[in-house]
Amino acid sequence: MAKRVALLPGDGIGPDVVASAVRVLRQVFSDRPEALSFQYHLLGGSAIDETGQPFPEETRAAVLASDAVLLGAVGGPKWDKGPGHLRPEAGLLALRKTLGVYANMRPVRAYERLLDASPLRLDVAKGVDLLIIRELTGGIYFGERERGDTALEGRFAKDTMYYTEMEIRRVVKKGFEAARDRKGHLTSVDKANVLDSSRLWREVVDDMKKDFPDVTVEHVLVDSCAMHLVTRPERFDVIVTENLFGDILSDEAAVLTGSIGVLPSASLGDGPGLYEPIHGSAPDIAGKGIANPLGTILSAAMMLRHSLAEPERAERMEAAVARVIDAGLRTADLARGQASVSTNAMTDAVIAAL
Amino acid sequence: MAKRVALLPGDGIGPDVVASAVRVLRQVFSDRPEALSFQYHLLGGSAIDETGQPFPEETRAAVLASDAVLLGAVGGPKWDKGPGHLRPEAGLLALRKTLGVYANMRPVRAYERLLDASPLRLDVAKGVDLLIIRELTGGIYFGERERGDTALEGRFAKDTMYYTEMEIRRVVKKGFEAARDRKGHLTSVDKANVLDSSRLWREVVDDMKKDFPDVTVEHVLVDSCAMHLVTRPERFDVIVTENLFGDILSDEAAVLTGSIGVLPSASLGDGPGLYEPIHGSAPDIAGKGIANPLGTILSAAMMLRHSLAEPERAERMEAAVARVIDAGLRTADLARGQASVSTNAMTDAVIAAL
Ligand SMILES: CC(C)[C@H](C(=O)O)[C@@H](O)C(=O)O
Ligand SMILES: CC(C)[C@H](C(=O)O)[C@@H](O)C(=O)O
Repeated sequence: MAKRVALLPGDGIGPDVVASAVRVLRQVFSDRPEALSFQYHLLGGSAIDETGQPFPEETRAAVLASDAVLLGAVGGPKWDKGPGHLRPEAGLLALRKTLGVYANMRPVRAYERLLDASPLRLDVAKGVDLLIIRELTGGIYFGERERGDTALEGRFAKDTMYYTEMEIRRVVKKGFEAARDRKGHLTSVDKANVLDSSRLWREVVDDMKKDFPDVTVEHVLVDSCAMHLVTRPERFDVIVTENLFGDILSDEAAVLTGSIGVLPSASLGDGPGLYEPIHGSAPDIAGKGIANPLGTILSAAMMLRHSLAEPERAERMEAAVARVIDAGLRTADLARGQASVSTNAMTDAVIAAL
Repeated sequence: MAKRVALLPGDGIGPDVVASAVRVLRQVFSDRPEALSFQYHLLGGSAIDETGQPFPEETRAAVLASDAVLLGAVGGPKWDKGPGHLRPEAGLLALRKTLGVYANMRPVRAYERLLDASPLRLDVAKGVDLLIIRELTGGIYFGERERGDTALEGRFAKDTMYYTEMEIRRVVKKGFEAARDRKGHLTSVDKANVLDSSRLWREVVDDMKKDFPDVTVEHVLVDSCAMHLVTRPERFDVIVTENLFGDILSDEAAVLTGSIGVLPSASLGDGPGLYEPIHGSAPDIAGKGIANPLGTILSAAMMLRHSLAEPERAERMEAAVARVIDAGLRTADLARGQASVSTNAMTDAVIAAL
């Protein structure tokens, strides 16, 4: 039986990079072409244009029936003016919630050959090898909201950061497990000196320690973490945190090594996983054929490992990407004024390196 | 009539650095010693030890009757185990709320001679010259909280991010005014693609643009801002944002230039202002006489400018600090293994440079 991969190219450069990843996947499975089947579906701005909805019912049904979902990117200035629930981002949030992918895993590591594009000093950047696990389906992203008028202070608006023990426990568990498979150190990030939800978060983490005696755990405040990511990033192994803190910190972490175009992500729950590069839809270079496909190719590799039980093929893809980077090949985003290659040429090189 | 300065040394290195700032202030006013009067009061852990409360009633009355408040730092492991409302941080939050200091101003700039302590590449760090204005008395720091039990998912905890139009308007106004006095560019940071409070924030900013035609305004999402602070910090002039985002971003910004020990802050409202260095209480070096007093001295300079109508004396203090830095004098935090001087020697040097 073929494994069903739902492809959601989305907007901007999304279609380019998803097409690249599909080409690489087909090559990796050239000995068993029947093992994977691909179906394209609409999400984000392009879905709004065609159906009026950022996350059409057809897409919802398809992703729920799939084994894994590979996403390009969503959003663009064209759709920025619509009401909140008709923006591309609303489609992305609904997709995450529908799939129940509560754990967003973002590995960030220094590729030695790319470090000259890092804003950090070489000696600071070179030690970066961390994994941020961001809670993705709870917190202030999905809490109650309210708007209205006050008697004396004009309008008001309210958002709610809400977490249950179950929600915290399941994502923190992913953190402990990942730490055990890596360097054995887990950093839980919160704002427990101010927030009740953070105090509950901290209690749950402390509760779980006894089940993972081989993992060392530390609690770090989100403001401290934002500092240490820049000053001493090598001190982190696995970071686990709630949705909003994870949004901010994972983007901060993504730029440390100069390789944001290369970074993948996996969002995991109990059903199909969702895989997407860290970079955005980059509408300014959409359709020019110069987008960096490596983040999406590495996301597809994570998909093989986490959703499709194909760890060896995942490793082959990752090794091929490392080889083309080592060989000095660069798309425009990484070229820093040097010669650069197209999306297609980069994809061809990865396929050749497999 | 003497201007009344309430001194809150606090915990850890707080007493050392406040004593230094007082020595410098006395010197700056040596021609008019009667112009300032100083009173010491308890706050934080030391207040808990003496009175059982982190923000004793005596301190509350005194700060409200003062012209300005100079704070060292609060907190330390000794008081970390107490219940939330009996922690040093609770005293700090109550102090801010009591004074109504809704606008926390944190200038961050590169001192050329300190850039070798920056984690950033020299070419990235050297352009940093920005001011973060953080809303300080609203948002999720002061919203309703709740804890309880759910039927199916264990315990829950809830925090509320709440803003009124009035609260947003008054701090954003400080942002526009500051931008007008600097390079004329205001960056408003929010998460308007997710949060209702951010959408209201953005509306208020857009509303106010017409009153400041000489200021250019851009909206940046908090996750993007966390990236750009590291990759292109020189693009920012004044940043204005809500309390929690400001907590995270201002700490991130504080480490960019390698000079966190030198950075001051001013928290302004309609009554007495609150002035404190950015660095924490550093319990590990408390009492050793090696803390960096420059952040507190520069905070005292901001106090002269913003609360005591003494801009010329403020400039003299700032110029003196710049001179000792240029002369190569370093406390241990900035020495990077080179020779370093004590808190007192650094203070003497500033006084000599006045
Ligand atoms: C588009 C936006 C809603 C989204 C988020 O904040 O989760 C994005 O920033 C991300 O991190 O994937
Ligand atoms: C101690 C803590 C409550 C405080 C805050 O978050 O406001 C601190 O981090 C700060 O930024 O002054």
